[in-house]
Amino acid sequence: MKTQLLLPLLLVTAAPALAQQTVASLPPPVIADPKVAALRDNALENDHYAWDIVEGLTTEVGQRLAATEAEERARQWAVKRLTAMGFANVHVEPFEMPVWTRGAESAEIVSPFPQKLVVAALGYSGSTGPDGVTGEIVHFDSVDALRAAPDSAVRGKIVFIDHNMMPAQDGSGYGQFGAPRRQGPTVASKKGALAIVIRSIGTDHHRNPHTGVQYFTDGATPIPAGALTVPDSEQLVRILKRGRPVTMHLTLVSAKREGARSGNVVAEVPGRDPKAPILLVGGHLDSWDQGTGAIDDAAGLAITTAAAKHIMDAGRPLRTIRVVWFGAEEPGGFGGTALAKAHAADRYAVAGESDFGADRIWRFSSAYAKSDPAIHAQLTASLAPLGITKNDKGEADGTDVGPTIEAGAPWISLSQDGTRYFDYHHTPDDTLDKIDPAQMRQNVAAWTSVLAVLSGGIEPEPKRAKRR
Amino acid sequence: MKTQLLLPLLLVTAAPALAQQTVASLPPPVIADPKVAALRDNALENDHYAWDIVEGLTTEVGQRLAATEAEERARQWAVKRLTAMGFANVHVEPFEMPVWTRGAESAEIVSPFPQKLVVAALGYSGSTGPDGVTGEIVHFDSVDALRAAPDSAVRGKIVFIDHNMMPAQDGSGYGQFGAPRRQGPTVASKKGALAIVIRSIGTDHHRNPHTGVQYFTDGATPIPAGALTVPDSEQLVRILKRGRPVTMHLTLVSAKREGARSGNVVAEVPGRDPKAPILLVGGHLDSWDQGTGAIDDAAGLAITTAAAKHIMDAGRPLRTIRVVWFGAEEPGGFGGTALAKAHAADRYAVAGESDFGADRIWRFSSAYAKSDPAIHAQLTASLAPLGITKNDKGEADGTDVGPTIEAGAPWISLSQDGTRYFDYHHTPDDTLDKIDPAQMRQNVAAWTSVLAVLSGGIEPEPKRAKRR
Repeated sequence: MKTQLLLPLLLVTAAPALAQQTVASLPPPVIADPKVAALRDNALENDHYAWDIVEGLTTEVGQRLAATEAEERARQWAVKRLTAMGFANVHVEPFEMPVWTRGAESAEIVSPFPQKLVVAALGYSGSTGPDGVTGEIVHFDSVDALRAAPDSAVRGKIVFIDHNMMPAQDGSGYGQFGAPRRQGPTVASKKGALAIVIRSIGTDHHRNPHTGVQYFTDGATPIPAGALTVPDSEQLVRILKRGRPVTMHLTLVSAKREGARSGNVVAEVPGRDPKAPILLVGGHLDSWDQGTGAIDDAAGLAITTAAAKHIMDAGRPLRTIRVVWFGAEEPGGFGGTALAKAHAADRYAVAGESDFGADRIWRFSSAYAKSDPAIHAQLTASLAPLGITKNDKGEADGTDVGPTIEAGAPWISLSQDGTRYFDYHHTPDDTLDKIDPAQMRQNVAAWTSVLAVLSGGIEPEPKRAKRR
Repeated sequence: MKTQLLLPLLLVTAAPALAQQTVASLPPPVIADPKVAALRDNALENDHYAWDIVEGLTTEVGQRLAATEAEERARQWAVKRLTAMGFANVHVEPFEMPVWTRGAESAEIVSPFPQKLVVAALGYSGSTGPDGVTGEIVHFDSVDALRAAPDSAVRGKIVFIDHNMMPAQDGSGYGQFGAPRRQGPTVASKKGALAIVIRSIGTDHHRNPHTGVQYFTDGATPIPAGALTVPDSEQLVRILKRGRPVTMHLTLVSAKREGARSGNVVAEVPGRDPKAPILLVGGHLDSWDQGTGAIDDAAGLAITTAAAKHIMDAGRPLRTIRVVWFGAEEPGGFGGTALAKAHAADRYAVAGESDFGADRIWRFSSAYAKSDPAIHAQLTASLAPLGITKNDKGEADGTDVGPTIEAGAPWISLSQDGTRYFDYHHTPDDTLDKIDPAQMRQNVAAWTSVLAVLSGGIEPEPKRAKRR
């Protein structure tokens, strides 16, 4: 009672004082540059570049598994499209890597309740061969539970790891709940397991499995490793709860080959000052093999490319904008590593990527918060009308620009709403219809703002002399 | 202006008169029987029978394709479960029918943009054989457009029929937009098509195809007939819009065999008067082969069985309640036909089925609206607290009880909300997680009300003499 009576009094007396103090101590007002605002608003209202790229790439190429012939076709498509859009210096920077491809796959409960489950192999899974393997299921609800189990409980069996990932706006569940995929196969292999199946690292309830990369580390022998769909994992848990031994027949055929070819597709909006540090943006061109890679990551390269195109349409920036459609991100960020190595001598004003779908950006963070608060304030002011808040505690991320940032480039992260991202991520369901064009335009507007703020100023193109 | 001025005046003068007239002319008040209300409310609050049946059947048997070994296992499961629940006269009434089974299936765009699409054969599809067939796609946006086309435009090609079915609460889109599945294969075959693929008859955007039955009529030769998922159909439309010839390689392997065995599982709550007309309720035991048949139709048989069990728990009804888990509904209502034939001599007080998922019932209709308005009023009063409205324009429907109703049985229909039903219908996604237990309990409460109202009165069981 005492507290309840006191609280309103405190508020009444404290609030005006606090408000006066705050207003008095506010920094000078920051208003977005009207030129930046105009470019942003035009992109928000009118952008079609991003949709045209996503629609074209997913329709005319479809899936683009890293280091395959499909990814090669995607690079050809990319060079053609980026050239047609007017970008300069469009070229492929090739690199070599191992290629992993999927064959036939199926999972079947043999006993006690015969039925088929839907499964997909994880990247770099070992192969069962066409005849498959049969083993008893041993069930764990986390990687830690598997690690704590005696080897004798696992040896010769098919490990099943469960989890309970839920949707989160910032996608933060993916780190913790992705452990069964990233570490499970290695731990299971080291304990002598015959194979491993995990509950898909996803937040949906559809019969579409979520694949994704994993590596066998610490000298572990590759074993067959697959992801059951979420409904199938829940079904397996119900079957296990009956308390009888559960036997599964698992077929995961796959193949791995060294020395395959991938590459980054690079395009530029040349700056007026070729020596000025570069703005590096992009997304990745490769995709997993079962969807058409619309949200992961045709959207990301389309958004950043569209933003660069809006700058190009407005004139010539002081700094060069380099757009990269990275190759082979999914199997381990090969493209990002290759780009950083090939361009070790380049200096950057910023590096940023879009690789989390196309739903609205809700916050951003940047190295400029510390290194140049005035620029950070300009970024904040220009993004605020799009509903984007600044996050001063953010850290750099991104598989593709990561190596370049580690080498010293200032970074920026524009965070998309990830609430429904893991419903589709790495599944056959990653298709064009999952993209909301209005939200994608907000993304393009945000990246256009960022490039405009950091461009060093955009001047109208000098009129070219007409040919006679 | 004149109309606008007059209208309020008319309302002011007319409204009170209308209200007085209506109140004066209302029929006598109808209040639900308190015993019925108590049974209904107990089911709404406490039912677990329905969930236990759906969870058990979908987990321990899984898919139950008609006339297969899986459906046979389902009948064994059914007899065991219904007996354990205390039903009397539990038995199987077998019948023979053709069995159709699915083999390998795939669809691939060969040119101009090579990529795989997701497809499933329709029931009674012809088989391509393991090597598949290759043909040019010819695109129609309706069966009528296909019918209007000259044979020369179709001969030797793969017909693709599109449509734009949208969700509807009453499921009414299924009739009109289901035409490509029901009639398309026959029309395409008669015009000499190599094969046909249709846009799935569904309202979702997932990579799960919707299968379903079709027949080749009018002497049409069976041709391969499949359903592309909705995202794949939209992808094919985008590819076709590029204006270049589109070639598909289609593999739909299937087999058909005559003389297979199915059956209806019958169970009863015996009435005090064995000669009184019977209450017939149920759902179908078979399912399509790619999901576990949770909403179609484990839910339906579970709901009606749970309702009968709630009556059994309360005592002994005057009328016998006959619960039927019909066999082989999906490929053409074989179970319903067999039941009507086997029980042609029986007299019924009502026949009704649940076969539209487990979302809440929102309205009902019954033959009693005309034949016995007092009973209809009792049904209306007992269902109203569940939010169920009466629909005096309703008509009998239901594949399983249809033949019995055609033979003269009074009918009742409890209509579930179908808004999301066709997201999952006949797909791999028809799994237990699609059922909302709270909405399913409302279904059980509604059917319990119906059985209680029509039971002729429920008397407590006489206490049985203890064995010495």
